[in-house]
Amino acid sequence: MPIRNIAVGRPQEATHPEALKAALAEFISTLIFVFAGEGSGMAFNKLTDNGSTTPAGLVAASLAHAFGLFVAVSVSANISGGHVNPAVTFGAFVGGNITLLRGILYWIAQLLGSTVACLLLKFSTGGLTTSAFSLSSGVSVWNAFIFEIVMTFGLVYTVYATAVDPKKGSLGIIAPIAIGFIVGANILAGGAFDGASMNPAVSFGPALVSWSWHNHWVYWAGPLIGAAIAGLVYELVFISHTHEQLPPPDY
Amino acid sequence: MPIRNIAVGRPQEATHPEALKAALAEFISTLIFVFAGEGSGMAFNKLTDNGSTTPAGLVAASLAHAFGLFVAVSVSANISGGHVNPAVTFGAFVGGNITLLRGILYWIAQLLGSTVACLLLKFSTGGLTTSAFSLSSGVSVWNAFIFEIVMTFGLVYTVYATAVDPKKGSLGIIAPIAIGFIVGANILAGGAFDGASMNPAVSFGPALVSWSWHNHWVYWAGPLIGAAIAGLVYELVFISHTHEQLPPPDY
Amino acid sequence: MPIRNIAVGRPQEATHPEALKAALAEFISTLIFVFAGEGSGMAFNKLTDNGSTTPAGLVAASLAHAFGLFVAVSVSANISGGHVNPAVTFGAFVGGNITLLRGILYWIAQLLGSTVACLLLKFSTGGLTTSAFSLSSGVSVWNAFIFEIVMTFGLVYTVYATAVDPKKGSLGIIAPIAIGFIVGANILAGGAFDGASMNPAVSFGPALVSWSWHNHWVYWAGPLIGAAIAGLVYELVFISHTHEQLPPPDY
Amino acid sequence: MPIRNIAVGRPQEATHPEALKAALAEFISTLIFVFAGEGSGMAFNKLTDNGSTTPAGLVAASLAHAFGLFVAVSVSANISGGHVNPAVTFGAFVGGNITLLRGILYWIAQLLGSTVACLLLKFSTGGLTTSAFSLSSGVSVWNAFIFEIVMTFGLVYTVYATAVDPKKGSLGIIAPIAIGFIVGANILAGGAFDGASMNPAVSFGPALVSWSWHNHWVYWAGPLIGAAIAGLVYELVFISHTHEQLPPPDY
Repeated sequence: MPIRNIAVGRPQEATHPEALKAALAEFISTLIFVFAGEGSGMAFNKLTDNGSTTPAGLVAASLAHAFGLFVAVSVSANISGGHVNPAVTFGAFVGGNITLLRGILYWIAQLLGSTVACLLLKFSTGGLTTSAFSLSSGVSVWNAFIFEIVMTFGLVYTVYATAVDPKKGSLGIIAPIAIGFIVGANILAGGAFDGASMNPAVSFGPALVSWSWHNHWVYWAGPLIGAAIAGLVYELVFISHTHEQLPPPDY
Repeated sequence: MPIRNIAVGRPQEATHPEALKAALAEFISTLIFVFAGEGSGMAFNKLTDNGSTTPAGLVAASLAHAFGLFVAVSVSANISGGHVNPAVTFGAFVGGNITLLRGILYWIAQLLGSTVACLLLKFSTGGLTTSAFSLSSGVSVWNAFIFEIVMTFGLVYTVYATAVDPKKGSLGIIAPIAIGFIVGANILAGGAFDGASMNPAVSFGPALVSWSWHNHWVYWAGPLIGAAIAGLVYELVFISHTHEQLPPPDY
Repeated sequence: MPIRNIAVGRPQEATHPEALKAALAEFISTLIFVFAGEGSGMAFNKLTDNGSTTPAGLVAASLAHAFGLFVAVSVSANISGGHVNPAVTFGAFVGGNITLLRGILYWIAQLLGSTVACLLLKFSTGGLTTSAFSLSSGVSVWNAFIFEIVMTFGLVYTVYATAVDPKKGSLGIIAPIAIGFIVGANILAGGAFDGASMNPAVSFGPALVSWSWHNHWVYWAGPLIGAAIAGLVYELVFISHTHEQLPPPDY
Repeated sequence: MPIRNIAVGRPQEATHPEALKAALAEFISTLIFVFAGEGSGMAFNKLTDNGSTTPAGLVAASLAHAFGLFVAVSVSANISGGHVNPAVTFGAFVGGNITLLRGILYWIAQLLGSTVACLLLKFSTGGLTTSAFSLSSGVSVWNAFIFEIVMTFGLVYTVYATAVDPKKGSLGIIAPIAIGFIVGANILAGGAFDGASMNPAVSFGPALVSWSWHNHWVYWAGPLIGAAIAGLVYELVFISHTHEQLPPPDY
């Protein structure tokens, strides 16, 4: 998960074969992740004739995203750093761990991966709707805004602590599991209120393919702000300051 | 997970930048954990119109806490030792693995983290109640007392065996998963009877924000006693005695 | 998980402090495991008023046993080898990886741990029955016999491949997870037919405390035979023969 | 998981004791996996009187296959490379990581393992049907074809990235978990549409024992094509080209 290592900026970076390979890895990982995650929601709709969410449905969504993201991060970790999420890429950029050019390349790859996954789902389910994220009754857009900020903060903080932090030690081995499972945990809370996206690519593909953009901005603004806060807090408090103001940590 | 290493007591410890960072890590980890865990309970109430617990609801609660605690322990493991629980901190203190001052600092951070998580949940769910832990019908407070003691004994024994024990070896790599999953396993048993807290911070935040303190003491007394027993047993039998009375173990 | 290392037989072994510590570790691990596993069954009975098993109930039982056994194996791995199951101990004995005396000591500890767990559950649930394992309608005792043999074969084969085999390599790190999860997987199949014990201690405690011994023998005979086959097959084919008949493996 | 290492072709390979042991390992692993996976479907049919799939049933199927495959891959990883799936073997062959002879040996072992698992299930469930995979209403065979291609692409891509890639690093430690869990994630999507096989052996055993071959070809063609694409893409883009066209990667 050497996200940090790819931070070295070089002018020709975005067209360098290495960068294109990384973008391809992000594309494939996001496709795999969204296919399982969005597909699990469509399976629920199929099994229940578009019934309202139940606790068992929430468990299914949680596991599909937890397992799917864990794998998607694993398979791209050594190639692209395993972002699979524009908010994670943004959080890495805010903390100085990825260049602007490569970040843009990742965003394009992630949004494309999600879109292709939704097109494949639309065909292979015989034309079912790729339901976009939406707010439950009684949940305002500002409620969802805070939900997405807090949940994505937790996700990107986890990315920093287990994958970016140079002092992560053996935590790096289980980092992809932790990154997948914090999303699974948060879906069991936020899934009943705003769908619990934490990932603009995850929201973008279904919205584009089903062409439903109601409140779509909140699934970008919330995750990006949560990610930025996590990147800044972790970088300033737990990474940078350590070797500037303190003696070498003895743990 | 070098809980043991932070046991070295120094007078200025509680105000040392390292200690404040550790407290901040405990605050953030407990916030992330309680947001997912308590949030999953509020999601169940939302989806079922405050219906009574079902097996699917118990599975959702179990996974939210198992996944959430695994991540919360992971992200603070290298900074604070990954307690995320006043009972774990107390168990570490009883076994001589943390100083009193730092223990108090952790408690404050954990209780604050849980409270802030509950305030954020109250706002982002549009004002739903952060339900406090309570006893099911037919379960006396003494039943719950024993339940919490046994379950927290299992949790803190796991912390000692996988994270504190100097002979833990490669178990340390999967320690955060084990610590999260023993809580998930216990919720599938105790969740139907007393909510299965095993963690005074997890009970405190919802009780404070919903201001319902009925039988609240049992969610402190049970976990603290279970943790103390685990800390003493593991320290006396499996750590201390080994290098005092026996030749170096040959395994 | 150095089960193999403890195979060195010494006359005074059973009373050696090391052996008593190992037995204590088995006692505590089995207690933790059975408390969560049997407790999850009692929780289902409580939530459904002793209703018949549902798919959601099977998922709860699977996760409680998978998570609980993973942790129980982890916390005793470095002390006793993490058996937590008389069938595993028997399989280790058949393969020559534990002495008879220590094996008997483990059995006593495991059966005691399960019994104490059930007594604690009986008290802390306010006197509910610790339901013994039984056969579903349409399932004969010979059906269950084969079920237990096949499932326990899978469990003990997993113990050998991930924990005992000297060529296990980095598999040893995730061995406790694999050992717990094969039990979780098998419960999702066998749980609907004969309860899916795979572990005589898991069946013994509830049977003793609820004093119901109907068909109890099948929960001993099946697991012990399955374990013996696994121990013999793995030891003869994949361990012993390798270094006798073949050049050093090149993988 | 040294799949790559077994690629060295030798004429006498298929009858070499090492190859026969590897085939035995594939046989046992597939038996263990199919027993839990197909068994969980039969358990659902038993508990619901052959009711239609529900979200809770999908969760049970997902966990049985995720946990079962994770373990099946683990226990054969060091002996056969942990394929447990003719599509994975085919993907390894396409990428040049296994010889034709050994590949055929693996296929025979995997199909036999699945068949024996189904025969054991038929007996131990008291004669229940080992339900073959089939299409849900509204799902055409071409829909299922794409579903199986995409899902198996994800599975075999995961095998390559975490187990075959020489630059996998510490990812190899969690590779069996990732391989099992991508199947679990995909079942939560595709399970409601075409059963989500991703594995011709998993489809073959139940079809043979229940003698129902309707649309059976799609459960071979889809997985084999998805696996071939994954093997080619990963080998060409992420393995071969790296050391031919680029300087040593600096991550």
